[in-house]
Amino acid sequence: MPDVLVAGASGFAGALAARLVQQHPEFRLRAVTSRSDAGRRLSELYPHHRVDLVLEPVDVEEHGTVDAAIVGYPHGASAELVAQLHERGVRVVDLSADFRLRDLPTYVATYGEHAAPALIAEAVYGLPELHREAIRGASLVAGPGCFPTAALLALAPLARAGLVGGVVVDAKTGVSGAGREATQTTHFVSVSENVKPYKVGTHRHTPEMEQELRALSADGGERGPITFVPHLVPIDQGEMVSAYVDLTAPADQVTLDALYRDAYRDEPFVEVVPTPPGVRDVRETNVCRIHAVADERTGRAVVFAAIDNLWKGTSSQAIQSLNLMFGYDETLGLT
Amino acid sequence: MPDVLVAGASGFAGALAARLVQQHPEFRLRAVTSRSDAGRRLSELYPHHRVDLVLEPVDVEEHGTVDAAIVGYPHGASAELVAQLHERGVRVVDLSADFRLRDLPTYVATYGEHAAPALIAEAVYGLPELHREAIRGASLVAGPGCFPTAALLALAPLARAGLVGGVVVDAKTGVSGAGREATQTTHFVSVSENVKPYKVGTHRHTPEMEQELRALSADGGERGPITFVPHLVPIDQGEMVSAYVDLTAPADQVTLDALYRDAYRDEPFVEVVPTPPGVRDVRETNVCRIHAVADERTGRAVVFAAIDNLWKGTSSQAIQSLNLMFGYDETLGLT
Amino acid sequence: MPDVLVAGASGFAGALAARLVQQHPEFRLRAVTSRSDAGRRLSELYPHHRVDLVLEPVDVEEHGTVDAAIVGYPHGASAELVAQLHERGVRVVDLSADFRLRDLPTYVATYGEHAAPALIAEAVYGLPELHREAIRGASLVAGPGCFPTAALLALAPLARAGLVGGVVVDAKTGVSGAGREATQTTHFVSVSENVKPYKVGTHRHTPEMEQELRALSADGGERGPITFVPHLVPIDQGEMVSAYVDLTAPADQVTLDALYRDAYRDEPFVEVVPTPPGVRDVRETNVCRIHAVADERTGRAVVFAAIDNLWKGTSSQAIQSLNLMFGYDETLGLT
Amino acid sequence: MPDVLVAGASGFAGALAARLVQQHPEFRLRAVTSRSDAGRRLSELYPHHRVDLVLEPVDVEEHGTVDAAIVGYPHGASAELVAQLHERGVRVVDLSADFRLRDLPTYVATYGEHAAPALIAEAVYGLPELHREAIRGASLVAGPGCFPTAALLALAPLARAGLVGGVVVDAKTGVSGAGREATQTTHFVSVSENVKPYKVGTHRHTPEMEQELRALSADGGERGPITFVPHLVPIDQGEMVSAYVDLTAPADQVTLDALYRDAYRDEPFVEVVPTPPGVRDVRETNVCRIHAVADERTGRAVVFAAIDNLWKGTSSQAIQSLNLMFGYDETLGLT
Repeated sequence: MPDVLVAGASGFAGALAARLVQQHPEFRLRAVTSRSDAGRRLSELYPHHRVDLVLEPVDVEEHGTVDAAIVGYPHGASAELVAQLHERGVRVVDLSADFRLRDLPTYVATYGEHAAPALIAEAVYGLPELHREAIRGASLVAGPGCFPTAALLALAPLARAGLVGGVVVDAKTGVSGAGREATQTTHFVSVSENVKPYKVGTHRHTPEMEQELRALSADGGERGPITFVPHLVPIDQGEMVSAYVDLTAPADQVTLDALYRDAYRDEPFVEVVPTPPGVRDVRETNVCRIHAVADERTGRAVVFAAIDNLWKGTSSQAIQSLNLMFGYDETLGLT
Repeated sequence: MPDVLVAGASGFAGALAARLVQQHPEFRLRAVTSRSDAGRRLSELYPHHRVDLVLEPVDVEEHGTVDAAIVGYPHGASAELVAQLHERGVRVVDLSADFRLRDLPTYVATYGEHAAPALIAEAVYGLPELHREAIRGASLVAGPGCFPTAALLALAPLARAGLVGGVVVDAKTGVSGAGREATQTTHFVSVSENVKPYKVGTHRHTPEMEQELRALSADGGERGPITFVPHLVPIDQGEMVSAYVDLTAPADQVTLDALYRDAYRDEPFVEVVPTPPGVRDVRETNVCRIHAVADERTGRAVVFAAIDNLWKGTSSQAIQSLNLMFGYDETLGLT
Repeated sequence: MPDVLVAGASGFAGALAARLVQQHPEFRLRAVTSRSDAGRRLSELYPHHRVDLVLEPVDVEEHGTVDAAIVGYPHGASAELVAQLHERGVRVVDLSADFRLRDLPTYVATYGEHAAPALIAEAVYGLPELHREAIRGASLVAGPGCFPTAALLALAPLARAGLVGGVVVDAKTGVSGAGREATQTTHFVSVSENVKPYKVGTHRHTPEMEQELRALSADGGERGPITFVPHLVPIDQGEMVSAYVDLTAPADQVTLDALYRDAYRDEPFVEVVPTPPGVRDVRETNVCRIHAVADERTGRAVVFAAIDNLWKGTSSQAIQSLNLMFGYDETLGLT
Repeated sequence: MPDVLVAGASGFAGALAARLVQQHPEFRLRAVTSRSDAGRRLSELYPHHRVDLVLEPVDVEEHGTVDAAIVGYPHGASAELVAQLHERGVRVVDLSADFRLRDLPTYVATYGEHAAPALIAEAVYGLPELHREAIRGASLVAGPGCFPTAALLALAPLARAGLVGGVVVDAKTGVSGAGREATQTTHFVSVSENVKPYKVGTHRHTPEMEQELRALSADGGERGPITFVPHLVPIDQGEMVSAYVDLTAPADQVTLDALYRDAYRDEPFVEVVPTPPGVRDVRETNVCRIHAVADERTGRAVVFAAIDNLWKGTSSQAIQSLNLMFGYDETLGLT
């Protein structure tokens, strides 16, 4: 039974990853580490996860002997630890942005200097529905951002069919996406009875969406840039992506229904549903629910994708990748 | 001091209108009526509004002697009462959709049969920022829908400048917009921790937005149809419209800033703000807060408009119109 | 593998029970029935439970061949079906109040006529922490009310020690406790930003608490009546009971800590914690978290018990009983 | 028109006080000060309050020339500024705890050293319903804590009638009561879907309740100590106090109804209501709604008092006192 380390387990994503590893029938949670809360029990910080381990300071020599690691560090800080673990033969799923962008200049422009640029070429973008085979053979998986996860699952069938013209992605996300740090932004009184856009057109998940959307397009060619705007809404977990696509050719509802049904027929974690989903439908699951509407009047498709930003958007998707990397059934520990 | 009737005062919009009339320094609240709750005190249904009048069944003979009326009936049911009051010389602000659409076939296609089609030509669309002079002289004002209110204030400066190409309007609204009726949709357990799109591309506020947007466009000509999608979010009151506009000519941030600042410089209830607004900022006010972003990478403008759906979106905007109709300062009783 | 029927599966409690049976390693979910929604899929009503069975009208002949049933009917309606199933040899956990009160006149005074009074004597009160052995041998278990579950776990150690004088139970509960029916009470706009007491001193869970508290008291004698007041708070699931106990003898914090630690040392689902719990800590678990405070200044103990009203308070506790009735490990399917 | 300073205006209470002074027909808001946010506009921090003044560092020489001040500092920090202003002849309402307790040793035991103990004797406890005449003549008013405000209004009629035996006060409060500071406690994810008790039996509002309750008791004698437990619930503003009183003599519902009706008949801001109030009923008002229930079965009275913790609980009550101090109608600017 492979031993798994969760590094950065005191954040929302790391803590959930630790719980999912602990519950997993084929992985053993070897250790949880934290830079800020070493010495405390994870169960004290997150009682509902019921992981009764003490958070340790990371020790690459000791922790580098595990079989696999999920790293829940912020971007920038993650690459170095990932590189150290990878060097010791640990298979890593990195939850940060550090290995998502294949183009170094784009990374640098978006996030700043990269601590392990040589490793970028090794990394596989960890969206199993798009890169399943590559993930199976990967030693390093870059867990996708939560917004790209939902947006790409929403757009992929249209992109593969060559139907994608202009794209607007309007997302609504819960507060857990902003992380555990207490700020004016995450203060209950700021969030309650509020809806607020942020990082309008400048959110760092945009290049990631564009990279993957380009790769998906039928001709492999360039796709126009995406307008992406996230909005903070007063929920804890959950994310709704509403994608507005100018279609390059007319498509009616029957066509869209067939396109999406066919695209996701065999996917265990993508559900094409007959009416717009709500984020509650997928709360605390690894499921993405999708519904596409042909707005024939305007020549657009409107596609909704609902996920739990901490689960399919981050931590349970990491387990999905880990299952693939170790040759297990992809759904193990996730249903 | 003009006497005002609020008919349909047991709904959210009518009840708030009654409160605003009662607090108004120059109007006297003469009566409140209700079809469903006659005999109960309004203060019992809505303690926080503190209107201690008994709801009466409407009696056109008796109530038709007021100077003005705000009618809070559902569309379809409203036109008949509006016509009866109008005939008796009562100046009316109708909160329903019955007199918003100037084109009868569009009304019929959208809402069904019209009970007083002859009166449509008399009605003025009650968005003071667009139709101030007409409202001053009107005997019948059609209060705009909450979504068109925010969307049109967001789009008007671009439309007048001839910059509007394709338009997507993604709205997020509180539950009070769904009305007082208890349904599975408004059940706390359905709404809490949820975000859910509804009436995708088919919401009845769409023709209203398109009618007014056409009228605003520089050349008076046809504008393409709008994709409009509302989403229900777990807030009580408040509405955020995020409008995505394909610009017909390039415009940078400086240009947009100037355009919006100039457009709304003298408007008492529109605030152009330097960062994206939150709906909390305008809660329980007649204010619309707007922020426009030039997304030069994509050739789009993204415009946010935040209102309180029950206030500026419905009831306080009705008072704003009533102030104009009676020659009062437009802000009276609203600040 | 025993076959289990969930009758009344379209309500919140029944639906969750169906999900828990379906996920259980040793039970097979044979059928789900509904009086109001027969013909619909349970997964359509409750997507997140992922039980993809069609709700059927109950058919005692057909459904009476199962090994066990969980009945999620309202009180009054439940007894008849329970009796029919019981008669056919089905082991039943009834989620309603119909078999909780051992004294028929008290039942009648509280709930009205009883449809199967002869069966009352067969029923065991399904709080495993108090009646584990009796549940093992039971053919009919009456699932406790959610408030008595938390209150009795909070009070039991004090009661057994003979320390309980006057008792006030102040509870705060989520809206799911009010059931799936859409009413003004469950309307989002009524609940949001509100806290509201209801059924003050008259809630029907009071006799149930008093019955069990009497049974627990050291001398088996009479205990004074309880003042019980529930409050509705804007959460979906979760329940906090704050019990205020006039102690019959002084007890300091050390004494209380030892009393509670000893009482629940071996209980798999009761956690005595060193600081007051929050209901989030136990969300979607069968766990009750308890913390007792000695208020020596006043001679009172204050005991907090946090549960998920739908899980430990209703449906997962039913599984706990079912595990006992079938000789399984009590925690099976619940961790 | 008296000039008013609001010191400490960047906190929730101070900011609301500034808004209420600005809206007041007979006060002029001269300046707003802040220790942490000097240089920023108050309207930037609190858009919905619409106070467009720049926060200044406090300058006792300059600001000491106002006619009145509301001081919104934390306890401990407040006394010094209050003393400096008072010395310059400024009439002060202090929102902190610094002048609430008449007994210095109790203050020291509860809050630590006092910076201006000589001034304690000058201060009047600012609950107008209990100390109206003294407030009229006061130069320094100590604004009551939010919990004592509600609890004392709930208990006063019983106390004056000599009916109060043991008292338990169970309170549920919104997050604004925890202040503007961003902490793990106020993080949306900690509060949402949670109910959590805190400072069990040790909250610093307890001595304040006991001081005033003793003063109210018919015989002026000692009253037993109060068990007071606040709970944090996921609302922004609002506070519900549920007071459980062991009656010293039997009292039925008719008696209680008469007692409360008579006690508050002439109070402009206390409403005795026929069913339990919700905190929504009084949101953003200076009103306290009260309902008392005779639980004859147990010999207790249960009294509910609902207020808005920031309004009647703090800032609008300060205006109520200020009105009295300046000889205005007590309700001016508050309805």
